[in-house]
Amino acid sequence: MFTVQLEFTHHHLQNPLSFILRAAQIYSDKIALIHTDVTNPVVYTFGIWAQRIQNLAYALIKAGIRPGDRVAVIAPNSAIITPINTRLKPQEVTYILEHSGSRLILVDYEYAHLAQSSKIPVIISNDTGRAGDPYESFLTNGRRLSEEKGWAGLDAEPDENAAAVLCYTSGTTGRPKGVITTLRGSYLAAIANAFEAQMNRDSTYLWILPMFHAAGWTFPWANVFAFATQVTLRTVDYAYIWNHLLHSAVTHYCGAPTVQIGIYSHPLARRLPKPVTAIIAGAAPTPHLISELEKKGIKPVHVYGLTETYGPFTRNYEQASLAAMSLEDRARSMARQGHAFATAEEVRVVYVREENEDRPLKDVPRDGKTLGEIVTRGNIVMKEYFRDPEATKKAFRGGSFRSGDLAVMHPDGSVAIMDRSKDIIISGGENASSLAIEQELASHPHVLEVSVVAREHPKWGERPMAFVILHPQHASNWRGRHHEFECDLKQHAKLRLPGFACPEWVEVVPELPKTSTGKILKTELRKVAAKL
Amino acid sequence: MFTVQLEFTHHHLQNPLSFILRAAQIYSDKIALIHTDVTNPVVYTFGIWAQRIQNLAYALIKAGIRPGDRVAVIAPNSAIITPINTRLKPQEVTYILEHSGSRLILVDYEYAHLAQSSKIPVIISNDTGRAGDPYESFLTNGRRLSEEKGWAGLDAEPDENAAAVLCYTSGTTGRPKGVITTLRGSYLAAIANAFEAQMNRDSTYLWILPMFHAAGWTFPWANVFAFATQVTLRTVDYAYIWNHLLHSAVTHYCGAPTVQIGIYSHPLARRLPKPVTAIIAGAAPTPHLISELEKKGIKPVHVYGLTETYGPFTRNYEQASLAAMSLEDRARSMARQGHAFATAEEVRVVYVREENEDRPLKDVPRDGKTLGEIVTRGNIVMKEYFRDPEATKKAFRGGSFRSGDLAVMHPDGSVAIMDRSKDIIISGGENASSLAIEQELASHPHVLEVSVVAREHPKWGERPMAFVILHPQHASNWRGRHHEFECDLKQHAKLRLPGFACPEWVEVVPELPKTSTGKILKTELRKVAAKL
Repeated sequence: MFTVQLEFTHHHLQNPLSFILRAAQIYSDKIALIHTDVTNPVVYTFGIWAQRIQNLAYALIKAGIRPGDRVAVIAPNSAIITPINTRLKPQEVTYILEHSGSRLILVDYEYAHLAQSSKIPVIISNDTGRAGDPYESFLTNGRRLSEEKGWAGLDAEPDENAAAVLCYTSGTTGRPKGVITTLRGSYLAAIANAFEAQMNRDSTYLWILPMFHAAGWTFPWANVFAFATQVTLRTVDYAYIWNHLLHSAVTHYCGAPTVQIGIYSHPLARRLPKPVTAIIAGAAPTPHLISELEKKGIKPVHVYGLTETYGPFTRNYEQASLAAMSLEDRARSMARQGHAFATAEEVRVVYVREENEDRPLKDVPRDGKTLGEIVTRGNIVMKEYFRDPEATKKAFRGGSFRSGDLAVMHPDGSVAIMDRSKDIIISGGENASSLAIEQELASHPHVLEVSVVAREHPKWGERPMAFVILHPQHASNWRGRHHEFECDLKQHAKLRLPGFACPEWVEVVPELPKTSTGKILKTELRKVAAKL
Repeated sequence: MFTVQLEFTHHHLQNPLSFILRAAQIYSDKIALIHTDVTNPVVYTFGIWAQRIQNLAYALIKAGIRPGDRVAVIAPNSAIITPINTRLKPQEVTYILEHSGSRLILVDYEYAHLAQSSKIPVIISNDTGRAGDPYESFLTNGRRLSEEKGWAGLDAEPDENAAAVLCYTSGTTGRPKGVITTLRGSYLAAIANAFEAQMNRDSTYLWILPMFHAAGWTFPWANVFAFATQVTLRTVDYAYIWNHLLHSAVTHYCGAPTVQIGIYSHPLARRLPKPVTAIIAGAAPTPHLISELEKKGIKPVHVYGLTETYGPFTRNYEQASLAAMSLEDRARSMARQGHAFATAEEVRVVYVREENEDRPLKDVPRDGKTLGEIVTRGNIVMKEYFRDPEATKKAFRGGSFRSGDLAVMHPDGSVAIMDRSKDIIISGGENASSLAIEQELASHPHVLEVSVVAREHPKWGERPMAFVILHPQHASNWRGRHHEFECDLKQHAKLRLPGFACPEWVEVVPELPKTSTGKILKTELRKVAAKL
């Protein structure tokens, strides 16, 4: 265990709460939060926001919340403590509330039904920010103590390695796991994100990424550290998004590629007057995506990470040679997950080990070919899975966090993901990367989105099956001729992929099943494939 | 004491060495160091630089250097470990070498005489970077081990609170004190400087600030964290500086106001094609300085700090209202030392206490008037004075570091230094701030530089005396009429200052005595004043 005694002047806790205190000192009157696309719009300055945070702290104390207690928040993109995915089913939310042992639930009116069956005290917010709103009344409970005692009356957590946030993974397989992150890690990850995004007090961040997704990649804090303005949205509505991109001086946003497609293909989409940075994770940006975003004046930055790594843990760092490359080559280069992020200590690709193997981790060669598992260590790796020592032990076996993502290490030390270990297709004894296949199929100009999964095959064991959404501009050309398109795409694949990796089946579909965070649910596709 | 056991995957040391390892991974072929204004110019990429650092580590091990040992470096702006001021006299250097207990001296050929009388082993560098140079031979000693064992053969310091750098204060009064900073503090301060300066891989930093001054404010590391290129200079030569400003794509530099004067008043000075950021500390920038720098396309940023705070600890954060202000008002606003820097935890102004007083620290009111002492706490405050527990105890009495700088706290929470405690002039029982007087006298259009000290006065106890350097453009107008100029300046002062703060004496001088780091030596001026 860590024993940290605060007897030295030079050793201070690394706690992201310090960011808002500093912002409220330096830019008290600067706009911190814009929340306008609602019946009762609100705008908060750093000074007022800090005061509301102080009121909330006292209100929680008055409600009996003590250090270490969990407070659940079920809300759209407008609040954060122990965030719960609003897109889950009631029974899933109930599981998380029970597993987390939450002592209090702060819930938005739109999601009140998710907390209905809970025995835990519930505070509803009507998202008005006005007197009469139950959440505002709750804050008022804290205001008297707040006025009386101020910040001095609140004890800071004395251990920087204490839990900061409990965030549940989206759980594409099995029960969601509770990821415990620390104050120290949150502090460093937030500073790293602010630095990597080159944010400052002139920046405006648009909340498209859900805050319940890895605590919004620490951006709720990163923005405050940079004194940036945050624009919140209740829903991912592309008309609202374009309104803000065009009129709210937005400079940054984060989102998965599927969200980017929604952005660039919206009727309101046009070239932006000032450059905007889009931080993309979840899947590699395709050439088409890169080119479409660039046409709008949006610069894509490709990062990779997990809930267990506070969001971004690697970044595709732009090399000087990139400018001279063709779009195809640029996309190929940008598809790599890249190198360790700022404050991320170490990213390795090691030989995959059996479940209970205890041999030391061994790096794969830097040949861009040998498949291994990405493992990571450092201050921005989670502390543990909440109330799950078995899963924690398994994840940290060997002294590094095992991501479960299969990748190669290129000669320049950059990492490129080939697949989630469970998404690899074993075709005739060969490992076929579903991601690599998708990357090549996506280069067909008529493909908007594609997902590849394994399907049983009598001769080869497994063979790749591709599910494809056609590009709206070209869909009408292939109407009633899907079979011809399938032949065309297979031909396209044959020119680019080894035989065992070519899709045996191609299915044109109107949409793909996705998790609440925009990731394609391959488990669902595998079920569909199995039934065909 | 801190007990930190490294048993968790999520807890990693904060050590600025990690920056160069990461830079060498991500931008191995990018230029890290440019050192060209010498007979044997050298340019190093991040990859080669990292290799040289590894060689040096093994060479030091081979030379018998063990953890905790001090290695002294006496060199111009082209190296750093335990940096020693090259502008000191031999006996001062001898004192530092003895007090630090250095086990080895790395010395530049130009300063070899400073290490001549030492009994400690000396390695001379001829600054050639070529075979035959004794320093290169020393590195070669490490190369074989380096090739054999690589980074894996080097043990990282297991405690992030261990000493990183031992840097001696310039010591305007008494013996210089050895400031011990930590790895953790260096890591955070370097990231903070990179963020505050908004540096990135397109930045080029020009080394005007001496690296022996508070370890170059952690910029040797900050630049690497940002993947910026560093241009080193052996001496502060304004022709070389302008050559780099115009032709080396310089984006950032640091320096005291006196250095800035040298820059903007040089014959080569002209408007720069791209904006450059000048980070200024040591004294507040005057209206004249701000206007002259802005004419050259140089944006001044005012920071404040001490060797004991790793350099910058506060910054004058630009408010939106600044753009609409007159130059005079802007300068008045920019003269404040401002608010806590990124990662700096706390800056307070507290009532000045007697030497041995143990009452708790009490903040002065935020009225912009009440004089108190600046005290600080946080991760970027030094660990201790080396081998001087008495001085450490004194400096940390009350639980915060006592800066010795007298300041007021403005209603917006920003700090404004009035004076070093020893530079206050007690005139007729009133406290007159020599800095405030200088600020007003510097607004006279014919004043280039001014320094004000106390001089004994039979009636008032003390009265201010001003030493003035005339602006070169106007000096000829006043030739042979210094007495008339003195009357003119006194008149200028009377319109702006209370009677007790008006200079009783004005002396026009060709230059001012300065420390090696460009600070005006008021002790010398006081001696001159006493003798007049």
